[in-house]
Amino acid sequence: MGRQKIYLEKLSHFFQIRNLLLRQALAECLGTLILVMFGCGAVAQMKLSSGSHGMFLTVNFAFGFAATLGILVCGQVSGGHLNPAVTFALCLLGRERWRKFPMYFAFQTLGAFLGSAIIFGMYYDALWDHPGSFDMTGPNNTAGIFATYPGKHLTIVNGFFDQIIGTTALIVCILAIVDPYNNPIPQGLEAFTVGFVVLVIGLSMGFNSGYAVNPARDLGPRIFTAIAGWGTDVFTARRGWFLVPIFAPFIGTIIGVMIYQLMVGFHVEGEARDRENAKQENERVRLTNVTTNDISKEGTKEMS
Amino acid sequence: MGRQKIYLEKLSHFFQIRNLLLRQALAECLGTLILVMFGCGAVAQMKLSSGSHGMFLTVNFAFGFAATLGILVCGQVSGGHLNPAVTFALCLLGRERWRKFPMYFAFQTLGAFLGSAIIFGMYYDALWDHPGSFDMTGPNNTAGIFATYPGKHLTIVNGFFDQIIGTTALIVCILAIVDPYNNPIPQGLEAFTVGFVVLVIGLSMGFNSGYAVNPARDLGPRIFTAIAGWGTDVFTARRGWFLVPIFAPFIGTIIGVMIYQLMVGFHVEGEARDRENAKQENERVRLTNVTTNDISKEGTKEMS
Amino acid sequence: MGRQKIYLEKLSHFFQIRNLLLRQALAECLGTLILVMFGCGAVAQMKLSSGSHGMFLTVNFAFGFAATLGILVCGQVSGGHLNPAVTFALCLLGRERWRKFPMYFAFQTLGAFLGSAIIFGMYYDALWDHPGSFDMTGPNNTAGIFATYPGKHLTIVNGFFDQIIGTTALIVCILAIVDPYNNPIPQGLEAFTVGFVVLVIGLSMGFNSGYAVNPARDLGPRIFTAIAGWGTDVFTARRGWFLVPIFAPFIGTIIGVMIYQLMVGFHVEGEARDRENAKQENERVRLTNVTTNDISKEGTKEMS
Amino acid sequence: MGRQKIYLEKLSHFFQIRNLLLRQALAECLGTLILVMFGCGAVAQMKLSSGSHGMFLTVNFAFGFAATLGILVCGQVSGGHLNPAVTFALCLLGRERWRKFPMYFAFQTLGAFLGSAIIFGMYYDALWDHPGSFDMTGPNNTAGIFATYPGKHLTIVNGFFDQIIGTTALIVCILAIVDPYNNPIPQGLEAFTVGFVVLVIGLSMGFNSGYAVNPARDLGPRIFTAIAGWGTDVFTARRGWFLVPIFAPFIGTIIGVMIYQLMVGFHVEGEARDRENAKQENERVRLTNVTTNDISKEGTKEMS
Repeated sequence: MGRQKIYLEKLSHFFQIRNLLLRQALAECLGTLILVMFGCGAVAQMKLSSGSHGMFLTVNFAFGFAATLGILVCGQVSGGHLNPAVTFALCLLGRERWRKFPMYFAFQTLGAFLGSAIIFGMYYDALWDHPGSFDMTGPNNTAGIFATYPGKHLTIVNGFFDQIIGTTALIVCILAIVDPYNNPIPQGLEAFTVGFVVLVIGLSMGFNSGYAVNPARDLGPRIFTAIAGWGTDVFTARRGWFLVPIFAPFIGTIIGVMIYQLMVGFHVEGEARDRENAKQENERVRLTNVTTNDISKEGTKEMS
Repeated sequence: MGRQKIYLEKLSHFFQIRNLLLRQALAECLGTLILVMFGCGAVAQMKLSSGSHGMFLTVNFAFGFAATLGILVCGQVSGGHLNPAVTFALCLLGRERWRKFPMYFAFQTLGAFLGSAIIFGMYYDALWDHPGSFDMTGPNNTAGIFATYPGKHLTIVNGFFDQIIGTTALIVCILAIVDPYNNPIPQGLEAFTVGFVVLVIGLSMGFNSGYAVNPARDLGPRIFTAIAGWGTDVFTARRGWFLVPIFAPFIGTIIGVMIYQLMVGFHVEGEARDRENAKQENERVRLTNVTTNDISKEGTKEMS
Repeated sequence: MGRQKIYLEKLSHFFQIRNLLLRQALAECLGTLILVMFGCGAVAQMKLSSGSHGMFLTVNFAFGFAATLGILVCGQVSGGHLNPAVTFALCLLGRERWRKFPMYFAFQTLGAFLGSAIIFGMYYDALWDHPGSFDMTGPNNTAGIFATYPGKHLTIVNGFFDQIIGTTALIVCILAIVDPYNNPIPQGLEAFTVGFVVLVIGLSMGFNSGYAVNPARDLGPRIFTAIAGWGTDVFTARRGWFLVPIFAPFIGTIIGVMIYQLMVGFHVEGEARDRENAKQENERVRLTNVTTNDISKEGTKEMS
Repeated sequence: MGRQKIYLEKLSHFFQIRNLLLRQALAECLGTLILVMFGCGAVAQMKLSSGSHGMFLTVNFAFGFAATLGILVCGQVSGGHLNPAVTFALCLLGRERWRKFPMYFAFQTLGAFLGSAIIFGMYYDALWDHPGSFDMTGPNNTAGIFATYPGKHLTIVNGFFDQIIGTTALIVCILAIVDPYNNPIPQGLEAFTVGFVVLVIGLSMGFNSGYAVNPARDLGPRIFTAIAGWGTDVFTARRGWFLVPIFAPFIGTIIGVMIYQLMVGFHVEGEARDRENAKQENERVRLTNVTTNDISKEGTKEMS
């Protein structure tokens, strides 16, 4: 065992990356890979088994708990955003530096790309066996396993609002969970709670277009499907729908940050600041008194 | 980043509300909004997809975890009642001031109104696409997405008892969870446990009329539907059913408080009081002895 | 508010029960009431809605989380057994006094009786509306809402083993969760874990006869159904099946205690004892040395 | 009660096993027994009830929570691997000794064998009642209750990759959960988190061949079915499929260890090492300074 330890130590030294941002980006990549691999895997299982091994509820559970696991894998290193909208929200609030944003976005999208590629490989036989595989239209279309497409009832405008509302709900809940002045849950359970948020969004906001609420989760797999055989239809379908899950979430993020801050955030933050100020004021008064006392004592001394 | 911080600080100062009751009412409003948005969203998803994207179980999960998230968002500020019946129970037990009750009731109802409005906007296309939308009767009626209506088998009397029993069960469980003398769960997990309570009530008490057990959750969306196009039928349907989920929960609350206090609460409270008294008694005896000893020592001294 | 507090204090004094065993029995009664109310309520919802508002999975969730809630309500007072088999197991291991057993059994059965009565009242209209209500046989029989009956494929012998195996599994898991020498989970999460145990037993051992694994949960509702209109058939059905869920669980308890103690319990207990002994031995040796040293010092002194 | 305690003490002494490895192997055996008993029990319930008492989702829940319970029962004693692939991963990383591996593998397989035997006994009547029981082929085959068999669409090569990918995902998540340098979750919740991992793998990777991802969980029940009446067909079916869930998981383990270490593990480990080194360096510098100071003081003294 001694030799094994030495060898592992050497490997560890050799592969250790010391650049913090790169390390964080790699962790985000792995976390988003896990999110998309398990999430899209559940969609694949539901669609390819024609419902015998899954239903919409299992997809919701899979995306929810996959978010939990993705955050657990990378949270200590990179914060576990898994979603450019979350990174954007934290940048807006000044809790993350803006230069992280493009790097995280790129690696989150890469992770989503790789996650969908793994699912493609895993269900390769099942995809070929499925009637209408690599078909963009029709009831058996399989492109929806990877990226999201709007339901037939949905107009582009309503779809845009759908993505905005979904992301707003996500961001309000996440901000409450990670607010340093409103810390409602025990240390270490944030990942589970975020998983519940994703689950609930799927349970109640998934019918219109499949609750992407995450530009990376949608764009990465969409690029993969374009390469893997579904072609450029994945971008042109429904008059450029693919732009909606990229841009709408950022608008939803801005609204979510505003709602949370106006209704809860600013007040708990302000209360903490008021308390801090009051403490400092007390401290100052006390110090002044001490000084005054000392001076008066000096005076007394001199007088005596 | 420096300038961003300063700007955020200014915004925080500008929007900070210092009135505690208003801040709490706002938080309750946001919490109830989240409860109703996710809960009614799940009903909408189930009904509008004709069961392909939901079933009664997903509605139960959504209401349960939505309660959890609603409490997490506002719990630190306002207590996270989300339900006038819960506020009423805590007022009855003297743990909240009575003047909070009307304020909370109003803002919880407002939050429920806004939550259902968001879902209406989100599923606007799907509602119009659904056969029998804006229809009060018939198997495809959509009014039940927002407010609750009794099943066909239910008489008004049984429905009244249904709401009483449901609220009683809710209140007994919540009182056990928040009882300061019977603290069974780790700090910070109350929200999750209350979510399980709501989930279980849905699993076992949801068939009669859809387990409102919450006057605000029912009244807010009902007012919204009256405005949004379903008309005054939402109030006149089933001989004034809408009054049942408003008044029955408060009766259930009184019964729930009595059952919990008589079977568990008074005894654990009394035990804690007995222990406290015993400690004070011991302390008093010890002090008396000390005094007596001192006196006797004095006496000894004098005698010597 | 001052007057309310005084009034509440007086009520608390008046109703406080100081007899510990009676208080514990009352708490067990309320806990088992909650278990059976939510559990049987879910069966009622599934059966009376003909599957539209429930399925076997929802029954499993309801019994699991109902066990969690029942334990949370009474756990601090009475231990939260909710099941005579659990009381029996703890008596066997000397962790509870034997005289608690009959008292707990009686009040657990009473709680189960009351729980099923509440569900009967709640779903009274739905029961009358259901085809074949109050019918003991046929596909729509409703007696199975309250007590358990064996499936058609099941012989009495296999049914007896079914109940033994189910209870053995329950007891092994519960002993691991509450073992003082093998404490695997954070303080306060025991109730949730026991809920998962009940859930899993339902998911995998529920097909034969509905996983009673609890004499009180089965006997209480059975007595209620006999009174409420189903008649003595509830006892005579399937050649006295009702005796199986009363007696088999206790045999399962004995086997479960043996398996857990032989495979895990005795060894972790023994290890703790060995460690304790080693510590005392060290202490003794140290004291002996000290004494010897003192003596030798004395000797040295004397010699000097 | 005094006599009972003495008797229990004697039993404890008599049966206590002091050999640590044997004790750990026994605990692994019980843990894996619980995993397979509940997991395969859920498959049996789904198949034998023809879907009325279960579906694929209930199987996923059962395997997930059964993993949690299995780990809780034996985790404090043996680490709660329940899976030779997990033992293999920890050996690869030098966290467990290699000599544990064969012992754990054997007892895990034995536990899986016993777990499936219990389910066979429990559902004996239901198995005989089921059309096509003891049949290896056809839509009603029951061999799949115990061991895993590939779906019709699956080639052996894709099946091999399926098992590799599933185990890789399992190992990456488990390594993140138990990484001493990346400790993301509260002490004591590891078992629940691993249960979620198993649940999610079932939700998204279960369609191809039933997500064994565990050589013991598959081999033990397969040997049992060969003995219990299904014959040697269980080994010869699908051109020796049974070898895939034995060997592919170990390859998946190696890949999983590599991915986690390269993308997260080495970096957090290295960071901790860097910090440790920096501290020691500081300490050394401080000591040197102290010594130098002392010397210079001495020098000063001498000079004075």
